[in-house]
Amino acid sequence: MTRIDIPTDSGFGLDNLPYGVYSRAGGERRCATRVGDHVVDLALALDPSLPQAQEWFATGSLNVFMAAGPQQWSAVRSLLREKVTGDLPDDAVFDVADVAMHLPFEVADYVDFYASEHHASNLGRLFRPDNPDPLMPNWKHLPVGYHGRSSTIIPSGVDVMRPCGQRKGPDDPEPVFGPSVRLDIEAELGFVVGVGNDMGRPIGTQEADEHLFGAVIFNDWSARDIQAWEYVPLGPNLGKSFASSISCWVVPMEALRAARVPTPTQDPRPLPYLRMDTPWGLDIDLEVEWNGQVVTRPPYREMYWSPAQMLAHTTVNGAATRTGDLFASGTISGPEKDQRGAFIELTWGGKEPVTVAGERRTFLLDGDTITIRATAVGPHGRRIDFGDVTTTILPCSCS
Amino acid sequence: MTRIDIPTDSGFGLDNLPYGVYSRAGGERRCATRVGDHVVDLALALDPSLPQAQEWFATGSLNVFMAAGPQQWSAVRSLLREKVTGDLPDDAVFDVADVAMHLPFEVADYVDFYASEHHASNLGRLFRPDNPDPLMPNWKHLPVGYHGRSSTIIPSGVDVMRPCGQRKGPDDPEPVFGPSVRLDIEAELGFVVGVGNDMGRPIGTQEADEHLFGAVIFNDWSARDIQAWEYVPLGPNLGKSFASSISCWVVPMEALRAARVPTPTQDPRPLPYLRMDTPWGLDIDLEVEWNGQVVTRPPYREMYWSPAQMLAHTTVNGAATRTGDLFASGTISGPEKDQRGAFIELTWGGKEPVTVAGERRTFLLDGDTITIRATAVGPHGRRIDFGDVTTTILPCSCS
Repeated sequence: MTRIDIPTDSGFGLDNLPYGVYSRAGGERRCATRVGDHVVDLALALDPSLPQAQEWFATGSLNVFMAAGPQQWSAVRSLLREKVTGDLPDDAVFDVADVAMHLPFEVADYVDFYASEHHASNLGRLFRPDNPDPLMPNWKHLPVGYHGRSSTIIPSGVDVMRPCGQRKGPDDPEPVFGPSVRLDIEAELGFVVGVGNDMGRPIGTQEADEHLFGAVIFNDWSARDIQAWEYVPLGPNLGKSFASSISCWVVPMEALRAARVPTPTQDPRPLPYLRMDTPWGLDIDLEVEWNGQVVTRPPYREMYWSPAQMLAHTTVNGAATRTGDLFASGTISGPEKDQRGAFIELTWGGKEPVTVAGERRTFLLDGDTITIRATAVGPHGRRIDFGDVTTTILPCSCS
Repeated sequence: MTRIDIPTDSGFGLDNLPYGVYSRAGGERRCATRVGDHVVDLALALDPSLPQAQEWFATGSLNVFMAAGPQQWSAVRSLLREKVTGDLPDDAVFDVADVAMHLPFEVADYVDFYASEHHASNLGRLFRPDNPDPLMPNWKHLPVGYHGRSSTIIPSGVDVMRPCGQRKGPDDPEPVFGPSVRLDIEAELGFVVGVGNDMGRPIGTQEADEHLFGAVIFNDWSARDIQAWEYVPLGPNLGKSFASSISCWVVPMEALRAARVPTPTQDPRPLPYLRMDTPWGLDIDLEVEWNGQVVTRPPYREMYWSPAQMLAHTTVNGAATRTGDLFASGTISGPEKDQRGAFIELTWGGKEPVTVAGERRTFLLDGDTITIRATAVGPHGRRIDFGDVTTTILPCSCS
């Protein structure tokens, strides 16, 4: 049997217990949690105490467990806290360095929101400089969002190929085809639906806890030049659809209870279906590392619209959600320049380069590596880590 | 044994052989084809001649067979033509009236295009009357499209509840919440991916036949008032996501060979990745029946962008597609008024009502029933029917 030594300052302590999917060399994919610097196989750790241990966890995605619902999520979390502090079977515990991590769940529908007032305002100033109000008229009345591509959501560690596509600058007489020259990040969080809703049965903001399973870091790669040419009038498509990267660990919403804070004041007051009777903001700090240097620290607590409001809005027209639905927050940007979660904002459309490892940089070059990390406030001042999303940019195959 | 009598004028003759999923009262869902007025159970009809008959067809969706690829699609089609003209087991053949039809495949990612020049121009004139060019600058350079919600794609026969949501007319001081008052249809075709592509491996226009499995009728329900308020700058979301209806029969792309015609002239000439070396337009006539009265007959052959171009565009940035991906064409509108595939065009924004069963009508009322039918040109002047998509509008639950 094995006992895990958890460093007292670990962001993967007993307050966290995130869920992921791992494999060992040549082995099958199975569900796991992380404790300190160790990965714990859930089926092996919980069988026979938990009758559903094999059904839920001896499988290559979290979807079966996510569909089991909030009472089961809580029960497993309690049991897990007990088990990982006791003796575990030797074959259930691995050093994090000795396993491969995979996409933790099968993504059903994916919607990306636009919930940061600072981000939306910055983009308004960049793209519509003559407009006195940088926000669109609808922005403070509803969480603006759009559906994205589920098939290209990939986990941390999978490289991203620079996309090719059409672009046309304002001075180009005709569109041209080639590799994007304005490849950008968007530092976001994503929220995962465990239990969906039937068509015609909207989810109220006060019911979000019964449906939302957990959160991941989300990097919404964006080819700004492709996006700028294609997006009117039906929104982003190929400028985003080539890849989105998520963290390998899903932090349970229950682990984020201590991080709950009020959202910024919502004025004008939203329509009744968007009002919240409990705080649904989240005190989570992100940081973005570009080739080893931290260039920005976006604060999630600044987000105007909450995950509960995103879910309520998505379903208020009767739309169904399913196990594995993913809602991304949109770029997280704070009020300060070094809190902006996209390089188009950080470098003000490329006009104000930042210095990265001694070089003046605007958008991404081939070979660049981006890491996004996130840490939530945990109970008693402890912290909850999300792991990270690390991705390297490969050259476009069309170039 | 049973022999099927196929009426000579049937749109479900041996040139069609579409695929669907049926069940009998209390029974499981299984794959079928339709011949004349009969539904034929594929696993029972093809076993033991086809070794994979059970694996591919004794299941509740077409996805396993769709993933088998074009050589298998052709082989099954040849075998099927032989089998359905011979003696079939009695328990493999049912009258169409005696079975229930279901969603024929599991939808992976769903993208809706905007491929009719007449539709895009009409909407441009309606929404941007001061603009000298009704088309956006990008429209003739790329097939504009956006991702939609897969979870709410439903088959013919499932009622649609009027959506609730936010809307704000130009004269409203604040947005209001309630049932949509401008509920509309969009008569489209949808194209189903059988074999997807890996990330970073785009599908060329000349390769589309190896990937596209078949076509369905697609009704892209649209709440114009919700859409108008929400869609800037990221495109349609709740105005569309409440429901999209498809026909229960997937017509194989092979059955549409005789319907291939050139698209309208594409001027300016598209970039190389969008050029086609074979005709990829489709000579298919649709009709839309509103409470029993045909109100418009949209001609698919007028569509500017082809399905092959939609697929090439979707993947040119390296995005992956999967078995079950669905590409809808966007509203099919011809040059004539009675060829417009959406009521917002047909009634010119509600200003020119049409007469339906003696009443002047603009948008949909609760209790209205819409049927969309489609017929393709088949070999030797015969015809290929798609079945129909019939849907009744139920009142909004929020009202």
